[in-house]
Amino acid sequence: MSSSYGNHVKITIFGQSHSAAIGVTIEGLPAGFSIDMEKLQVFMNRRAPGRSKYSTPRKEADMPAFLSGLVGNTTCGAPLTAMIENTNTRSGDYDNIRDIPRPGHADYTAHVKYGGFEDVSGGGHFSGRLTAPLCIAGGIMKQILEKEGIEISAKIKEIGGNAVQPTKAIEEAMERGDSVGGIIECTITGVPAGVGEPMFDGLENKIAQAVFGIPAVKGIEFGRGFEAAKICGSENNDAFYFEGDTVKTKTNNHGGILGGISSGMPIVFRVAVKPTPSISTEQHSISYEKGENAMLKVEGRHDPCIVPRAVPCVEAAAAVAIYELYQYRYRYYEK
Amino acid sequence: MSSSYGNHVKITIFGQSHSAAIGVTIEGLPAGFSIDMEKLQVFMNRRAPGRSKYSTPRKEADMPAFLSGLVGNTTCGAPLTAMIENTNTRSGDYDNIRDIPRPGHADYTAHVKYGGFEDVSGGGHFSGRLTAPLCIAGGIMKQILEKEGIEISAKIKEIGGNAVQPTKAIEEAMERGDSVGGIIECTITGVPAGVGEPMFDGLENKIAQAVFGIPAVKGIEFGRGFEAAKICGSENNDAFYFEGDTVKTKTNNHGGILGGISSGMPIVFRVAVKPTPSISTEQHSISYEKGENAMLKVEGRHDPCIVPRAVPCVEAAAAVAIYELYQYRYRYYEK
Amino acid sequence: MSSSYGNHVKITIFGQSHSAAIGVTIEGLPAGFSIDMEKLQVFMNRRAPGRSKYSTPRKEADMPAFLSGLVGNTTCGAPLTAMIENTNTRSGDYDNIRDIPRPGHADYTAHVKYGGFEDVSGGGHFSGRLTAPLCIAGGIMKQILEKEGIEISAKIKEIGGNAVQPTKAIEEAMERGDSVGGIIECTITGVPAGVGEPMFDGLENKIAQAVFGIPAVKGIEFGRGFEAAKICGSENNDAFYFEGDTVKTKTNNHGGILGGISSGMPIVFRVAVKPTPSISTEQHSISYEKGENAMLKVEGRHDPCIVPRAVPCVEAAAAVAIYELYQYRYRYYEK
Amino acid sequence: MSSSYGNHVKITIFGQSHSAAIGVTIEGLPAGFSIDMEKLQVFMNRRAPGRSKYSTPRKEADMPAFLSGLVGNTTCGAPLTAMIENTNTRSGDYDNIRDIPRPGHADYTAHVKYGGFEDVSGGGHFSGRLTAPLCIAGGIMKQILEKEGIEISAKIKEIGGNAVQPTKAIEEAMERGDSVGGIIECTITGVPAGVGEPMFDGLENKIAQAVFGIPAVKGIEFGRGFEAAKICGSENNDAFYFEGDTVKTKTNNHGGILGGISSGMPIVFRVAVKPTPSISTEQHSISYEKGENAMLKVEGRHDPCIVPRAVPCVEAAAAVAIYELYQYRYRYYEK
Repeated sequence: MSSSYGNHVKITIFGQSHSAAIGVTIEGLPAGFSIDMEKLQVFMNRRAPGRSKYSTPRKEADMPAFLSGLVGNTTCGAPLTAMIENTNTRSGDYDNIRDIPRPGHADYTAHVKYGGFEDVSGGGHFSGRLTAPLCIAGGIMKQILEKEGIEISAKIKEIGGNAVQPTKAIEEAMERGDSVGGIIECTITGVPAGVGEPMFDGLENKIAQAVFGIPAVKGIEFGRGFEAAKICGSENNDAFYFEGDTVKTKTNNHGGILGGISSGMPIVFRVAVKPTPSISTEQHSISYEKGENAMLKVEGRHDPCIVPRAVPCVEAAAAVAIYELYQYRYRYYEK
Repeated sequence: MSSSYGNHVKITIFGQSHSAAIGVTIEGLPAGFSIDMEKLQVFMNRRAPGRSKYSTPRKEADMPAFLSGLVGNTTCGAPLTAMIENTNTRSGDYDNIRDIPRPGHADYTAHVKYGGFEDVSGGGHFSGRLTAPLCIAGGIMKQILEKEGIEISAKIKEIGGNAVQPTKAIEEAMERGDSVGGIIECTITGVPAGVGEPMFDGLENKIAQAVFGIPAVKGIEFGRGFEAAKICGSENNDAFYFEGDTVKTKTNNHGGILGGISSGMPIVFRVAVKPTPSISTEQHSISYEKGENAMLKVEGRHDPCIVPRAVPCVEAAAAVAIYELYQYRYRYYEK
Repeated sequence: MSSSYGNHVKITIFGQSHSAAIGVTIEGLPAGFSIDMEKLQVFMNRRAPGRSKYSTPRKEADMPAFLSGLVGNTTCGAPLTAMIENTNTRSGDYDNIRDIPRPGHADYTAHVKYGGFEDVSGGGHFSGRLTAPLCIAGGIMKQILEKEGIEISAKIKEIGGNAVQPTKAIEEAMERGDSVGGIIECTITGVPAGVGEPMFDGLENKIAQAVFGIPAVKGIEFGRGFEAAKICGSENNDAFYFEGDTVKTKTNNHGGILGGISSGMPIVFRVAVKPTPSISTEQHSISYEKGENAMLKVEGRHDPCIVPRAVPCVEAAAAVAIYELYQYRYRYYEK
Repeated sequence: MSSSYGNHVKITIFGQSHSAAIGVTIEGLPAGFSIDMEKLQVFMNRRAPGRSKYSTPRKEADMPAFLSGLVGNTTCGAPLTAMIENTNTRSGDYDNIRDIPRPGHADYTAHVKYGGFEDVSGGGHFSGRLTAPLCIAGGIMKQILEKEGIEISAKIKEIGGNAVQPTKAIEEAMERGDSVGGIIECTITGVPAGVGEPMFDGLENKIAQAVFGIPAVKGIEFGRGFEAAKICGSENNDAFYFEGDTVKTKTNNHGGILGGISSGMPIVFRVAVKPTPSISTEQHSISYEKGENAMLKVEGRHDPCIVPRAVPCVEAAAAVAIYELYQYRYRYYEK
C-alpha cells in the first residue's frame, strides 16, 4: 500500500481495471452536506472514456453507486463508499501481457513486487481507470470547497510540446499509431492564507503526493517552478502590498505557496504527463517464461493521448489535497 | 503539523532557527546497526554553513548530540533522538521582520496561520536550518542503504540557468547583492525492482513529499520529466531487455520508476531550487502594525545561493523516502 | 473517523445498518494468498443473526461479495474490498428513535456529533451489524495466521455472571423481555516471542483498540488482569525456564505479554460485554423535538444476549491486531 | 515502534532509562498557549521518584528543559520538544540482567525482538521512567483542556486488594521485600457530548491505547465495566432526562461513553496496575549465555508499589487521548 490518502479526510481507493467493481471510501466528510449528484456526474463525465474520437471506446457510464455514508443524497457522517461496476471487461485482450510486460506500464514492476500474483488484466490496480474513484472523491470535495469560495480549475497547457494546436498534435500521433503527452496547469482560487502545514505536509508536499497518484504524471512544479531556478532572487521574490485590507503580492512566482502554506494568492501548479505507453507499434520487451527478449504488440484501441481525460483527475487530486489541509488552516489558540 | 514523515520508519523534526536546539527523532530503525559517526559528520558538513565564501558565515559545528536510541554508536531499537544546539543566535537581527514580512519567505503565511505567535527569529521552524536534522536522519539511513548496495548521489546540474559555470553565476549574484537558484539532479543506484507502493505511496509520491520538505524547492521531475510531455510514446517508452538474468531497459526515460515502483534501473530525479529570498536590496512589503505598505531591508549576510548546501539535503530526503519504502518491496505470500 | 485500523495492514469498514451495503477494504494483504472461502463463510456464520432462538431473526446470509483484490480466490496485492448487501431493511421500525434516543445505544451521542444528520435506522454506522465486515477482515487474517501456526480461539466465560449455566441466564432474561451481557475469553497460541511494539503500539494497546471497536465492549484485561492488582509481585511474576530450547514461564499471569511484546506463552485476554441495550420494557428517555422527557418502547425483536455472536468478533479483532504487529516481530539488523 | 500516539496532536516519546536524556516531541499544539510552568512542575512532581518512603530513592528533579516549540513560555506552533536529562545512571546495577532477564519485566521479550541489541540498563525504553515525558505532554494538554472546563482527576481505588488501608498494604509488602499493585480510577468532567469517533477511534479505544502505554497496566474498564457483564440490560441502561436544557442520564453505568462518543456525563474508567515486578527475593529465570535455568536477585532499591506514582500518568494518558479527540467533536457541515 497505500491506496489511501489523507489524515483529516481519508480516501481509500480500491479496484482493478477488470475486477467486479472499482470504488472509493471517504472517511471524515462532515455530516449534513448534500451532494449535487448531477454536478458530480458532469464532473465524472469529463474523465470518462469514449467521449471523443481521441479516447478509448470502452464506453462505461462511470455512474457511481453509493453503498454507504448517505441518507438520501446527504452525508450522514459515516464512511461514504461509492463504487462503479466494471462491465466491459474482456480479459482475453490481455493474454499476451501475462508473459510479456508492456514498456512504460507498471506490468513488470508489479510482477516483481507481487510475485506474479498481480492482476494483469488492463493493468490491474495500476490502470488509469482507478482515477475514476479519485474523481468521485475529488468531485465531492470540490463541491464542499466551492461552498467556501474555493475554485479549482485545470486546463491543458500544451500537448506534445505544442501549446497552440494540441488537437493537431493528438491527431498526428493517432495517425502514426503513436501517442503524446502534455502539460496540465491547475489554478486554485479562493484559498485563504494559512492553509498548509510545515515541512512534510505543506501544500506542495501534499498536492504532489496526490497528483503523482495519477498514472503517467512524471513532474510537478509550483508557481514559476523550474524557471525560478534560472532567475535571480530580486526577480523571483514577490513583493507584498495591501489591496484594501487584503495582503497580496504584485507577482505570483511563488504560486500562492510560501513555506508550504497558502498566501492567499492563486495556487498555481503544472503537471507533466508522459505519452500514453500503449501504442500500436511493436515494441521490445521480455518474456518471463522464456527468460529471453521478446517482441510485444499491444492489442486493442487505446487513447493516443490521455491528457484531456487527466485534466479533471488533476482537479480531483488538488481538491483532495486542499480539502485535507483546509480545516487546519488556523493553528492558534482562540481564547 | 506535520514535521513528521514516514510510516515504517518515522522521523519527527523539531526546532526553530533560534530555539535552544534543533533535532530529530527517528522511530523504526533496526536495532544493531552501528552508525559510522565520522562518515555522518562528513555528510553533515556538506550541508553546514560557513564552509565557503558563498555561504552564510554563521559557523555552527552542526555536531549532533545523541540523546537516545543508541548503546555506544549502535542502535538499540528505541527511538533515536539527536539534537544540535543552537549557539550563535542573535535574535536582534530579526527585529524588523516581526512587523514586516520578508518577500519569498514564510514569514507572512506563518503569521496568518499561527496568529502572530510564530517564532519569527531566523524564520523559526521554517528556516533552512531545519534541514540539518533532516540530514542527520537521511545520513543514517543512507548508511543503512549503502550496506544494501544502494547509493544515493546528488549533484548540481545548473545554477542560475548556467550548467557550465555555476560558480560564476553565484559570484555575479553575490556582487549585485542578489541571489540565484538552480537545479539539483539526484541518482539512486542499486534499488532492486519492487520498491514503492501503488497510487499515493509510490516512489514519486514519497520522494516528492520528502523533497518539498526542503525550503526553496518549487519543482520535481522524474526521469525525462517535463520533457517527456513533449515527445511521443514510441520515443518515451523504455524497451525491456535481458542483460544476463537481469531485466533492464535500453533507455531510462522512466527514471527507474513505473507505476510508482522501482524497475531496477537507476532512479533519477531533478529538483528546482528557487533563488534564496534573502537579498540585500530593499524590497516592497507591508507592515502588519501600520496596516500599510512598507519597505524592508534584510539585514545580515545570507547565502547568495543555497543550492550547493541543498545537495546533501536532497540526498537525505531521498534516503528517507527510499528507506521508508524499501522494506516493503516484496508484497507476496511466501509459503 | 476513524473506522480504519492498522498501519501495516489497514482495514476500513463502511456501511450503516440500513445502507445499500456494508463492507470492508483491506490494504496490505500479501499477494498470492488463497482464501478458503468455505472456511471464511463458516466463520462468518458464527456471527450471523437468526441462527438460534436467542438471536434476532433478521436472517441475512451475510455472504460477502468480493469487489476487488482477488484473482479467483487468490489475493493479487491490490486493496481487497468485500461487501454484504443489506436486504432486510425495514427503516419504518426506527421511526420513533428519530426523536427519542434509545438508552444504552449511540443514538444520542451520534445525534450531537453529527448534528442530526446521522443515519438513525438500526443504529446506522454504530450498529452491531458493522461487526460483519470486521469478521470478513479478521476471518481472512486468521487464515493467514493459521498457516504460521497461530490459532485464535475465543469462548464464553460467563453470561449474566453465570459461568455454569449461560444458556439459562439468557433464557431467563428473554422471558422477562430483558437482556444480559457476559465475559468472553480469548486465547491465542503460536505467537512467537517478539510480536508487539513499545509504548502505544504494544499488543495490549492494539488488541484493546481493536476490541473496543465491537459495540457493547466495556472492559478488557490481559492475563491475570484486574486480579493481578490484588496479589503480590512474588505471586504475579512468572518465572522463566527452559523447556528444551524454548523459553517458557511456569505460570502465565502476564497473559503472554510483557512490555507490550509477546513472550511466546499463550496470549490470554478477557472482554466484558454489557447487556444488549435493546430491551422490550418501556424506558425513560427524552424527545429532541419537544425538549422534554419521554418514554420509549423499542419495537421489533432483539437478541436478549449478543455475547454468543460477539465471540467470533473478538477473534476477528484479535486477528486484525495480531496480524498488524506480526510482520514487525523482529526489529534488528540482519547483516 | 510506535512510541508515537495521536493524529491531530501527535506525541513521540524518546529515551531509555539510562540514555543521555528522555523526552517528548508534541506536534499540533495550537500556537499562543502560555504554559503555566509552575503548575506543570507540580504535576510532574506527583510522578517523580524519591518523594516518599515507598518510592525508589533515585532523586531526579525531573525538570523538563524545552528545546523548541516555545517563545518564552508560549507555544509558537512549531513542534514542542522537552527533555529531562538522566543524571543518576549507574549502569553497573544492571550487569546481571544482561544475561538473566527479570521475571515480569520486558527484558526477555525486548531481547528477542531487538536481537540482543536492546539497552538493558534500567529496562531501557521499557522503563517506567518513560512515563515522565508522557506526563510532560499530558500535563500541558491538561492545562489546555482545563481552560475548556475539562477536569481530569485520578485516584487510588485500592492497593493489593485493599480499598481502606492502601498505605498499610504497601508497608507490609515492603517489609517482606515484596510488591503490590492496585486499581486507579480516573474521572473526567466537563467533556461535552460528541467527543470520540466511531469504531476504532472511540474514546474507549483511544484511552485504552494510551493507558496501556503505562508499564504494568493489565486491564481497563469503563463505567460499570466488568460488572456490567453480570447485570441485566434493564439495570445497566442509563435513562436519559433533561436537567434544564442539558441532557443527562440518571445513572452512569456507561461511564460517559456510548458508541465510543461522550454523552456529556462524567467519563469514568478504572485501570488495573500489576505489582512492581522488581522484588528483592531471589527469582527463577534463565541464562541466555549458558542456555539453562538460572536464579536472579534484582539488586538496588525499588518501589514496593508504583500505583501512587502511576496516578498522574493515568491522568496524562487520559489527557492525551481526550485532547486528541476533542477538536473533532462536531462532525457536521455548518452552513
